[in-house]
Amino acid sequence: MTTGKINVSVENIFPLIKKFLYSDHEIFLRELVSNATDATLKLKHLTSIGEANVEYGNPVIEVKIDKEGKKIHVIDQGLGMTAEEVEKYINQVAFSGAEEFLEKYKESAKDSGIIGHFGLGFYSAFMVAEKVEIITKSYKDEPAVRWMCDGSPEFTLEPAEKTDRGTEIILHVAEDSLEFLDESKILSLLNKYNKFMPVPIKFGTKKHTLPKAEDAPEDAKAEEVETDNIINNPNPAWTKQPAELNDDDYKNFYRELYPMQFEEPLFNIHLNVDYPFNLTGILYFPKLGADLQIQKDKIQLYQNQVFVTDNVEGIVPEFLTMLKGVIDSPDIPLNVSRSYLQADGNVKKISNYITRKVSDKLKSLFTENREDFEQKWNDIKVVLEYGMLSEPKFYEKAGAFTLYPTVDGKYFTLEELKENLKEKHTDKDGKLVLLYAGNKDAQHSYIAAAAEKGYEVLLLDSPIISHLIQKLESDNSDITFVRVDSDHIDNLIKKEDTAISKLSDEEKETLKTIVEGVVPQPAYTVQLEPLDSHAAPFLITQPEFMRRMKEMSQTGGGMFGMGNMPEMYNLVVNTNSELATSILENKDEAIRSGLVKQALDLAKLSQNLLKGEELTAFVKRSFEMIK
Amino acid sequence: MTTGKINVSVENIFPLIKKFLYSDHEIFLRELVSNATDATLKLKHLTSIGEANVEYGNPVIEVKIDKEGKKIHVIDQGLGMTAEEVEKYINQVAFSGAEEFLEKYKESAKDSGIIGHFGLGFYSAFMVAEKVEIITKSYKDEPAVRWMCDGSPEFTLEPAEKTDRGTEIILHVAEDSLEFLDESKILSLLNKYNKFMPVPIKFGTKKHTLPKAEDAPEDAKAEEVETDNIINNPNPAWTKQPAELNDDDYKNFYRELYPMQFEEPLFNIHLNVDYPFNLTGILYFPKLGADLQIQKDKIQLYQNQVFVTDNVEGIVPEFLTMLKGVIDSPDIPLNVSRSYLQADGNVKKISNYITRKVSDKLKSLFTENREDFEQKWNDIKVVLEYGMLSEPKFYEKAGAFTLYPTVDGKYFTLEELKENLKEKHTDKDGKLVLLYAGNKDAQHSYIAAAAEKGYEVLLLDSPIISHLIQKLESDNSDITFVRVDSDHIDNLIKKEDTAISKLSDEEKETLKTIVEGVVPQPAYTVQLEPLDSHAAPFLITQPEFMRRMKEMSQTGGGMFGMGNMPEMYNLVVNTNSELATSILENKDEAIRSGLVKQALDLAKLSQNLLKGEELTAFVKRSFEMIK
Repeated sequence: MTTGKINVSVENIFPLIKKFLYSDHEIFLRELVSNATDATLKLKHLTSIGEANVEYGNPVIEVKIDKEGKKIHVIDQGLGMTAEEVEKYINQVAFSGAEEFLEKYKESAKDSGIIGHFGLGFYSAFMVAEKVEIITKSYKDEPAVRWMCDGSPEFTLEPAEKTDRGTEIILHVAEDSLEFLDESKILSLLNKYNKFMPVPIKFGTKKHTLPKAEDAPEDAKAEEVETDNIINNPNPAWTKQPAELNDDDYKNFYRELYPMQFEEPLFNIHLNVDYPFNLTGILYFPKLGADLQIQKDKIQLYQNQVFVTDNVEGIVPEFLTMLKGVIDSPDIPLNVSRSYLQADGNVKKISNYITRKVSDKLKSLFTENREDFEQKWNDIKVVLEYGMLSEPKFYEKAGAFTLYPTVDGKYFTLEELKENLKEKHTDKDGKLVLLYAGNKDAQHSYIAAAAEKGYEVLLLDSPIISHLIQKLESDNSDITFVRVDSDHIDNLIKKEDTAISKLSDEEKETLKTIVEGVVPQPAYTVQLEPLDSHAAPFLITQPEFMRRMKEMSQTGGGMFGMGNMPEMYNLVVNTNSELATSILENKDEAIRSGLVKQALDLAKLSQNLLKGEELTAFVKRSFEMIK
Repeated sequence: MTTGKINVSVENIFPLIKKFLYSDHEIFLRELVSNATDATLKLKHLTSIGEANVEYGNPVIEVKIDKEGKKIHVIDQGLGMTAEEVEKYINQVAFSGAEEFLEKYKESAKDSGIIGHFGLGFYSAFMVAEKVEIITKSYKDEPAVRWMCDGSPEFTLEPAEKTDRGTEIILHVAEDSLEFLDESKILSLLNKYNKFMPVPIKFGTKKHTLPKAEDAPEDAKAEEVETDNIINNPNPAWTKQPAELNDDDYKNFYRELYPMQFEEPLFNIHLNVDYPFNLTGILYFPKLGADLQIQKDKIQLYQNQVFVTDNVEGIVPEFLTMLKGVIDSPDIPLNVSRSYLQADGNVKKISNYITRKVSDKLKSLFTENREDFEQKWNDIKVVLEYGMLSEPKFYEKAGAFTLYPTVDGKYFTLEELKENLKEKHTDKDGKLVLLYAGNKDAQHSYIAAAAEKGYEVLLLDSPIISHLIQKLESDNSDITFVRVDSDHIDNLIKKEDTAISKLSDEEKETLKTIVEGVVPQPAYTVQLEPLDSHAAPFLITQPEFMRRMKEMSQTGGGMFGMGNMPEMYNLVVNTNSELATSILENKDEAIRSGLVKQALDLAKLSQNLLKGEELTAFVKRSFEMIK
């Protein structure tokens, strides 16, 4: 038996790192600015613990473009490197100086915000540069050095002139990457990846007009001065404690995140945990528009204030991907190029934490200012209802703040509904019947009929409401939901008293035969009912169960194949109406069937079923009647 | 100046490769089966060119689970490795044996289907295994060897007993990966990644019931036999030439790809190109349902018959992501873990090729069987219209087969519309006016009015149609589109003849005053018109421009802020109608305004504007009238 060590040659691995590790060439800038930030933060830490005896000052990172020379410079005022350190950190691929630093300074450095992890980021420079130069001078009293490499694994190292502390990286941009010499391109990259990094980043200059001196002559020209243009906010709101921030701070940060967004967020949730994982962030509930798909995936994921991605799938439970805001965690496990998430137990814990924080916040918003919460309800309900259906833990908590609005703008919790409607809405079998409408306009006449009897009608109009009420019914055996047009009102909440019919059984039979002779079968099932004589003479209803199953099937779920079932309606004929009597008593068959047809058309109008040719004919006939 | 070579130590890079290179642990099986396939294909190639003097036979790859031993075996009958080759290919990270093979055999091997590329896949085994064993015997006359490594870079190598040719990889599954010892898990992975790989893959056995012998007694038990269970189809349809396949073959392959899909595809497009890049595949136009978002991203991307991803963003132009099917290309540049696409010039070329093939296919379907193409039009139009708006190259070609259906089921191309409708539809200013409806039902009375005058009305009901007609108008200055309810028909296509008004100017003024006194302002602009006396007395119209801009704004685009403008309508009063005369002549103000209200309600009904409380009141009033 022989033993040995697996080996890796730089000739094999270097091309892969340069060319195939990162999907997107543009991230070279993120990596280099991250390295510059780490160099600065390390110096900050060393001066703070007295290990570096230099003035930390107010270091900035500078990014410069040299269009003519086809060069990009990234310059920091951090701790710099000695020749020996260049050998150690640069010439050894995948040796992470950041990890070494964190290991060495353990406790004291754990909140230093050091970004680096894999020791590969520097080499991403070769994705866009044919040659890379490093000129660096350590904070220690050692000479500056210049390192140079053309992408082959060969490098040169020599003394350099640099006198001030820090590192300058010079990319000699390759011919196929000249786009990165464009100022607007670099600015957009800095805005995307580095907008909230902790060390100020200077890119270009800004022109300011100075106010004129008071004693200046009228025609004196305003003086223009140039100042450094700092492109980032090193202290974004999420890095602060909630106690330091007020409402305006949160709103301002929202505008910083989404400059093109004009609507204000409804409210925010500040995330801040450091055990068992480290996570900060601010989530916002935005006003949702009609197309929910477009509004997904607006949450930005950061690691130590470096933008990573706006795909937070897995980290944020799906129902919260409609939210906006920022999540920052060094503990979210990403792959080497930080492009995607790795399966990990931590991720599930983070997702659970976020769910819990969101439900706690909703609970407190509800408790502290119910009126305000009610006003926001319509904007947040879809997210919450979807959460109740998809996250059992959220469902458990959501009962306390989930609202059921009525068509007249009252809001009840489920418990309040049970309490307040018990007396009036309990039917003769002891079941609490909750009436609801899906659309105030479309079901207006049915709502009006229920209101006339003194019933409350809920307005439940979310696209997934049929799934939710199905679930609520199965968890609350004492209640049942029925849409207000699923039968005539006396049948929806059945009471003991039986109505008296004006018509004899024989007359009813005759009436039924007449109506069935005119009304198309089997689309409408004729149902004779002795209703109040002032109630509508003809009424079209659609039984709850079938309609709900169809709806559930159309929005995913429910019983298989229900979505394709034909619509089934009942035609309720009020045997106590004057019209019923007129139809019965009229002996002219043409007039009789004309009456039934017109009554059917009117019932269809109330249920939005009179359309196309039938409607055109109805309108024409009606114009004839009034001309 | 000193020079040197950047170096990489296996201690640094190995943990990254094992843990952070791949996002998903499950791909270890894809990688190992790919290696086994390569070993087999290499042997096939060597025997075919006479370099290996052994029988190729009918090799299979076997995947086995040893639950008790906590092991997974992947066994091939390929070319195997000598001790020397193990040293070279296994012990050197990122040395790609596949690349070396293709380099050595160049021309002869270029279509051999070799998968490997980066020389990293094997190490993905350590994502799930605490120890990996290789037992291998080369096809050359050399002894078998056993290699073993526990994930540290240390390995052992020793002689082994194996007598038959090929390589067996044994994964000693780690405690945190025991899920991979589950048969259904492995089967689902094989189905996902390896379903169409070119060497048969055996996993478990299948039970078959043999037919009973003819002379067997009645109560004899049926005999059961076990046969190898081959989980893949080594020759999927897309690897064949179009000439070898008929309609049923394409349909069967669709069912193979989407076993849960019951609808048949409308038609398919076979992709097959090998210059300037290599690409094969079959795309299907499916029947699209209502929710387009859900149906996106069903195209599967393969590389040499290995499944890579179902995210083909960038490779397939966005408008074609609604299609289904398979694309296979060794030339699509992916990152090392093959998880995502890299920016590359080839990708744009591939996308352009696919666009061209799709438009060529549509053109030939249209030319060869127009009737059939017309029947499919409604199912494909949204995709095509979106393509016309988003891909200029597709727009250029699409004119030849884009159809404009009429409400009575005729289909015209734009050229045919110009030709056939020229005479009838040209207005007095020489403009060809194309009438269209967005909904046959909702605009029925307006369509009927146009039909009565002998006009054709197009049925254009795609959600993005307003953008398309806007574009068509700007590219064809001689045509204009107007929706059939945007004015009364005589104004939509204005002819020379001026209508004669029954009313004097003074009477018109009086009528206008009466109507404006009743009709809510400014929601309705009252417009008096001397129409045919049999035309509708009151008619509500909505001007084309505003409505179209609003629609465009709502579906993304158009003028900023238009989406939030209030709806504006015109109320056309037909001064030649009998009702106009009745209103004028009636001296009772209450009756007069009752007439106007009822007429307004009827006009609103025709335009779907009578809703909620107004509709309930209208129905109630109408029931009163007939009781």
